[in-house]
Amino acid sequence: MTDRGMRAVGSVCNAMDSAQQPAGTSTALIVRNETPFNAETPAMLLPRAVLTPSSQFFIRSHGEVPNVNVQQYRLKVGGLVKNELLVSLADLYRLPCETVSATVVCAGNRRNEMSRISPIKGVGWDSGAIGNAVWSGVKLYRLLELAGVQQNVRHVLFEGLDHIHEQQASTYQVSIPLSKAADPNGDVLLAYEMNGEPLAPAHGFPLRVIVPGFVGARSVKWIQSITLSDCESDGMFQQHDYKLTPGFIDAETFKRVWREYPAIQEMPVQSAICFPPNGYKHASGTPLTVRGYAHSGGGKRITRVDLSVDGGNSWSHSAILTRGTSSDAPYAHDWSWTLWEVAVPSLSTPCQLACRAWDAAGNSQPATVDSIWNFRGLLNNAQHRVRVLPSASL
Amino acid sequence: MTDRGMRAVGSVCNAMDSAQQPAGTSTALIVRNETPFNAETPAMLLPRAVLTPSSQFFIRSHGEVPNVNVQQYRLKVGGLVKNELLVSLADLYRLPCETVSATVVCAGNRRNEMSRISPIKGVGWDSGAIGNAVWSGVKLYRLLELAGVQQNVRHVLFEGLDHIHEQQASTYQVSIPLSKAADPNGDVLLAYEMNGEPLAPAHGFPLRVIVPGFVGARSVKWIQSITLSDCESDGMFQQHDYKLTPGFIDAETFKRVWREYPAIQEMPVQSAICFPPNGYKHASGTPLTVRGYAHSGGGKRITRVDLSVDGGNSWSHSAILTRGTSSDAPYAHDWSWTLWEVAVPSLSTPCQLACRAWDAAGNSQPATVDSIWNFRGLLNNAQHRVRVLPSASL
Ligand SMILES: [Mo]
Ligand SMILES: [Mo]
Repeated sequence: MTDRGMRAVGSVCNAMDSAQQPAGTSTALIVRNETPFNAETPAMLLPRAVLTPSSQFFIRSHGEVPNVNVQQYRLKVGGLVKNELLVSLADLYRLPCETVSATVVCAGNRRNEMSRISPIKGVGWDSGAIGNAVWSGVKLYRLLELAGVQQNVRHVLFEGLDHIHEQQASTYQVSIPLSKAADPNGDVLLAYEMNGEPLAPAHGFPLRVIVPGFVGARSVKWIQSITLSDCESDGMFQQHDYKLTPGFIDAETFKRVWREYPAIQEMPVQSAICFPPNGYKHASGTPLTVRGYAHSGGGKRITRVDLSVDGGNSWSHSAILTRGTSSDAPYAHDWSWTLWEVAVPSLSTPCQLACRAWDAAGNSQPATVDSIWNFRGLLNNAQHRVRVLPSASL
Repeated sequence: MTDRGMRAVGSVCNAMDSAQQPAGTSTALIVRNETPFNAETPAMLLPRAVLTPSSQFFIRSHGEVPNVNVQQYRLKVGGLVKNELLVSLADLYRLPCETVSATVVCAGNRRNEMSRISPIKGVGWDSGAIGNAVWSGVKLYRLLELAGVQQNVRHVLFEGLDHIHEQQASTYQVSIPLSKAADPNGDVLLAYEMNGEPLAPAHGFPLRVIVPGFVGARSVKWIQSITLSDCESDGMFQQHDYKLTPGFIDAETFKRVWREYPAIQEMPVQSAICFPPNGYKHASGTPLTVRGYAHSGGGKRITRVDLSVDGGNSWSHSAILTRGTSSDAPYAHDWSWTLWEVAVPSLSTPCQLACRAWDAAGNSQPATVDSIWNFRGLLNNAQHRVRVLPSASL
């Protein structure tokens, strides 16, 4: 067994330690739900490193973490293929290993701000359901080439090993368009390593799909099968969830009109202030360094982050950017977030800070959450606002 | 000579008829500048057809329309290539002809709304510096394959035949990233036909680059040379124009800091109300059908257009969409605009209509023009607003 294989086996053994909270997850995470386990990174930690440590990376689960027997594990590649494949981990480790730096972000990141306007069902995320890592594994296009894609294929379906306890689904299944899946430069990966270590069980051990530039919901953990099809997944997570709707659509109406709304794939441009936290106390007139993250979908580079110290009335500061992707990455292949900071020389308090990012396509963020409110609380990319209060100096 | 060649020769002869206004342009166009000739489509005409007629298509020129001798014309493909090419029109006509439906839009479309906030130098466009056509010709990647791309190439430079009378430039030269240019699915075209007819002189006869999903400024007309390079074009239209800057940057400051801002390539999501025009009179309480266009860069599909009848306070109407691209186009290959309409059953006047579009990545439009004002008046994709006044019924 290779080094890589050895490390993987070590990792699955650790997974057995824990019943509820997956092994290797940090107590630093803010738990939003115990079963299934959902937890986010305290936002203040995020801008500390371009690569989010695995132990601090947010966890989004729809079921329980499956225990996987690494000897018996086989990834099935089937559907409209010329040769159905049953791929062992050893098979995968023999294929070329490639590494991609990519941000994974939940469609419901910052749902809490929408819930404050009107209550929303769903995991109550603040701005920490996002993280950035380097992922290593086999590019999906290689397996598709080995399997042979039939002429009429348009979508690639992913199914996880986890058992879901929801009325309409027993497994987690979604799909992405073939044009993304089969593009060598689309960088869709079957990842077995995260930040140079074997995937932790909570993050999808032994194998996780990473779909750079797309919503986290398509980066299926514990992948057990890949199915080529002429249509999208008809599973609930593709059809009845992860869809963006107008504000006047409610849960009841949605049951009738879900077909009219496309599944979310790429993400909009977004950013958040991670430091200071909301309600932070700061001596008026003294310097403060404001930090946060910014990200856009589809590999579009963040070109600018603006900071306002007057609640968005004026945008007087441009942030210094630290990119998660090397600056010579090809156009539209900037899959990683950008960290940013603004050193405000003299901040008058009380005030409201606001940030907005711009991507390479010239998209920016809406001013208010209420203008984009939707009943599922998805894709909240409104300008992020933080109140800073006055205090005595240190 | 092929049919295609014959038609092309006919077309260049027509070009000789006119000195200032290029031949074959409609008097329906609203002329914004005589020399160089710049004219836009009256917005009300735009939603009448998914394919904008060539004679109604907006014209953006930086110099005079060149007279081209079709026998002597050669397109040079050089720079960091293995074999330099000199390609005649006959050579091009022998290569596979492909057709792409794509919207071309000026970066300065709707500049006038920005100029009303604070004056801006540049062509004074309303919302008609946009059009959609089918373009036929040879995909650029084929020529790049024939020339042989050297290892260190990162950018593809385009130069037009037109003479520019500006201090910093005598020809029009810009560039796009190789990742776009060399991608067969990026659909970059060397087009010799528009809407099934030879290109009109004003639209780039004999050959125009079409870069679908990118700003119009990269779709170089009267192309004379393609140069492969390890860096971007250093021409003024790449480096000193067509860049998006924060509101606090003025023309003087920009001369120092232009290096900090990337050249615009993809366009943000945008939409406009084309009917009714601003100030339209309408009997209160009677039905009105509102029409317009919507478009996003990078091939991202328009998923939704919202209409507000109260100036953007609420978004009560979803538009019916007519797509310019077939609904089974691959993901992120929707290069054409989407026309939309909303039949408002009973419109109370006076009122302010507002529209906003959403693209497949969940991006939408900023609420106000002043929040995105920039000194060049570029990428105005604010929600578009139109006042409707009361009148006696018909
Ligand atoms: Mo998610
Ligand atoms: Mo333009």
